[in-house]
Amino acid sequence: MISKKYADMTTKTSIIREFAEYAGRRAAEIGSENVFNFTIGNPSVPVCDEFTKALQKLLAEEDPLTLHGYSPTLTIYSVRKAVADSLNRRFGMEYVPENIFMTSGAAGALAHAVRCVTQPGDEVITFAPYFPEYVPYIDGTGAQLKVVPADITSFQINFDAFLEMLNPNVQAVLINSPNNPSGIVYSTETIEKLAKILYEKQEEYGHDIYLISDEPYREIVFAGTDSPFISKYYDNTICCYSFSKSLSLPGERIGYVAVNPKCKDAELIIVMCGQVSRFTGHNCPSSLMQLGIAEVIDMTSDLSIYEKNKNILYTELTKMGYECVEPGGTFYMFPKTPIADANAFCRMAANELDLILVPGDSFACPGHMRLAYCTTTEMVERSLPLFEKAMQMCK
Amino acid sequence: MISKKYADMTTKTSIIREFAEYAGRRAAEIGSENVFNFTIGNPSVPVCDEFTKALQKLLAEEDPLTLHGYSPTLTIYSVRKAVADSLNRRFGMEYVPENIFMTSGAAGALAHAVRCVTQPGDEVITFAPYFPEYVPYIDGTGAQLKVVPADITSFQINFDAFLEMLNPNVQAVLINSPNNPSGIVYSTETIEKLAKILYEKQEEYGHDIYLISDEPYREIVFAGTDSPFISKYYDNTICCYSFSKSLSLPGERIGYVAVNPKCKDAELIIVMCGQVSRFTGHNCPSSLMQLGIAEVIDMTSDLSIYEKNKNILYTELTKMGYECVEPGGTFYMFPKTPIADANAFCRMAANELDLILVPGDSFACPGHMRLAYCTTTEMVERSLPLFEKAMQMCK
Repeated sequence: MISKKYADMTTKTSIIREFAEYAGRRAAEIGSENVFNFTIGNPSVPVCDEFTKALQKLLAEEDPLTLHGYSPTLTIYSVRKAVADSLNRRFGMEYVPENIFMTSGAAGALAHAVRCVTQPGDEVITFAPYFPEYVPYIDGTGAQLKVVPADITSFQINFDAFLEMLNPNVQAVLINSPNNPSGIVYSTETIEKLAKILYEKQEEYGHDIYLISDEPYREIVFAGTDSPFISKYYDNTICCYSFSKSLSLPGERIGYVAVNPKCKDAELIIVMCGQVSRFTGHNCPSSLMQLGIAEVIDMTSDLSIYEKNKNILYTELTKMGYECVEPGGTFYMFPKTPIADANAFCRMAANELDLILVPGDSFACPGHMRLAYCTTTEMVERSLPLFEKAMQMCK
Repeated sequence: MISKKYADMTTKTSIIREFAEYAGRRAAEIGSENVFNFTIGNPSVPVCDEFTKALQKLLAEEDPLTLHGYSPTLTIYSVRKAVADSLNRRFGMEYVPENIFMTSGAAGALAHAVRCVTQPGDEVITFAPYFPEYVPYIDGTGAQLKVVPADITSFQINFDAFLEMLNPNVQAVLINSPNNPSGIVYSTETIEKLAKILYEKQEEYGHDIYLISDEPYREIVFAGTDSPFISKYYDNTICCYSFSKSLSLPGERIGYVAVNPKCKDAELIIVMCGQVSRFTGHNCPSSLMQLGIAEVIDMTSDLSIYEKNKNILYTELTKMGYECVEPGGTFYMFPKTPIADANAFCRMAANELDLILVPGDSFACPGHMRLAYCTTTEMVERSLPLFEKAMQMCK
């Protein structure tokens, strides 16, 4: 018999995918230039030329047996060293290669990290609004995901609700800053307060609590935003990173787990990542991709368009009367919908205006909508009258 | 607390790795030319030039946003079509792209396939000698791996023992032909007999039994060997393939699941693979690698050296008195050790002669040793006096 668990998963429809697929169908019908598709977080600027050149050089000059050969169980040492050195240089940390494990993007990193630090029955806390794929990553471990309701006035952490939810079964806390979908960056004050609570609760409960920090948008931070390097503030932090957004390589599935060297069992957790990788049949990201990103480790794509798009959308939408907390990074914003029913609003905008947004219900935060503005500025500008019309239609 | 399960896995030493690491240390001490390392199944011939050129062309000509963009959940459709067309052309099958799911090599394919067709508590039967990584793939599903003892006279299937072991809890049978470690290829007669039994038992038990066929060595078959395409003989077959060996790309982690179009729930199983991939945080192999292999789908590396090495080793070792079933493919052979204790023999050969072999105990088949002869012919020839000496030392 086929697996009930995975068969059941196939029947659950994703609202994000539903809207994205609708956008695709409409593009086929009326031309993609007539569909204002803000559904998907797919980077819209190409990888830097240096990356393409690095791959071409590797292909031209390296022995193909070495280049395409098996990675060691804990991934390629020189690449782990390049990541550690870069983090140390940029954030004043003291990582060694033994703290780094290369993964299939942040998704792979999260799935590894959660498996390493939880047992079935444990609780993992995250904060709304949150990326819905956290659910399968946590389910996969047998742990339970608990969600702290959003503080919709700032999208920083709702500490009162968090404190109420903490209990001795909580083994890990999962945060995502800069945040998908809100675009908010947790401030130094927020991270310091979170760290203080976690240190106190570790003491109180007599066990470690790991902070799993999902950071694929770390390099997309806008001018003037306070953007602390989270691992600096709490020893038991596992940083989960992806090059998908910073280098526009989402299909290449390349990222890493970086365990704070001061984390309890830091090196053991990395060795355990190797075992998780065996267990899932994954066995390392592509060796060419590992070696390629090591060559451009401190570079990014030209990410400036995201800030430009944010400035236009934030300024104009707030003028129109949309209420929105101003994003500090990412390529998302998360305004309130003019009517409380975000699903109804997003369906209306899609059906009447070909303006395709995603309702916040998907991110455990109703009454809001996510705009993924990783698109051309021209499209952003042409969309403004439609946002205006959508607002009018609600009056 | 860190996960007991994965922490425990890190403490279990792998005998294969132990011998391989010993070979590495000795190479550092006395020079790799003085160590006769037959431990690891790492291809020794480079990928065909056409693959390198295909990647270079993709990098030079394709829009980087498309080239490195997210794969669809079920992997890239044009690549799935290239795989299906190739299998149809070569083996007279009728696959459609909807039967194909691209994976991280055969390991990823197996881990997906097993998760799709078993529930916790089910039994999966495999046949000794077998690749020890099957254990974590099956453990990962909550199913139980049951091992049919080897028929050491032929390394075909021990059907009497298989029939005794079959019971209604068996949901899947996992085979590997051409076989690691024996090098044996299951004959048409063996596959037909296996299929007949499985059809009968499906009827008797009133449920499907899936045949999971692990085929990374499918393209490495020697002259005169009967090498049936397994999926042709049994409808409920899930073929798990890797380009690691045929194209010498083990580090790129690229392979596929191909579900026989006549398989019950064929298309649903592929959709389920997409869910398994989410659950493990894997989300598709590298998009560049998917697109690259589609360009060389019917090609292989020059694999002739493996047959040349096999011919030398088989001829000379049998002359020396080693008993061995002649391999029909792969780059492994699996002779009896001259003394019953294969561990003791392999340690002696390693310590006294720097001749590094792997004891068959690792493959659930004591009294044998695996030679991975994916090495230079020159090294094979220079090793012969050492095999002679090892034999003499046992007399």
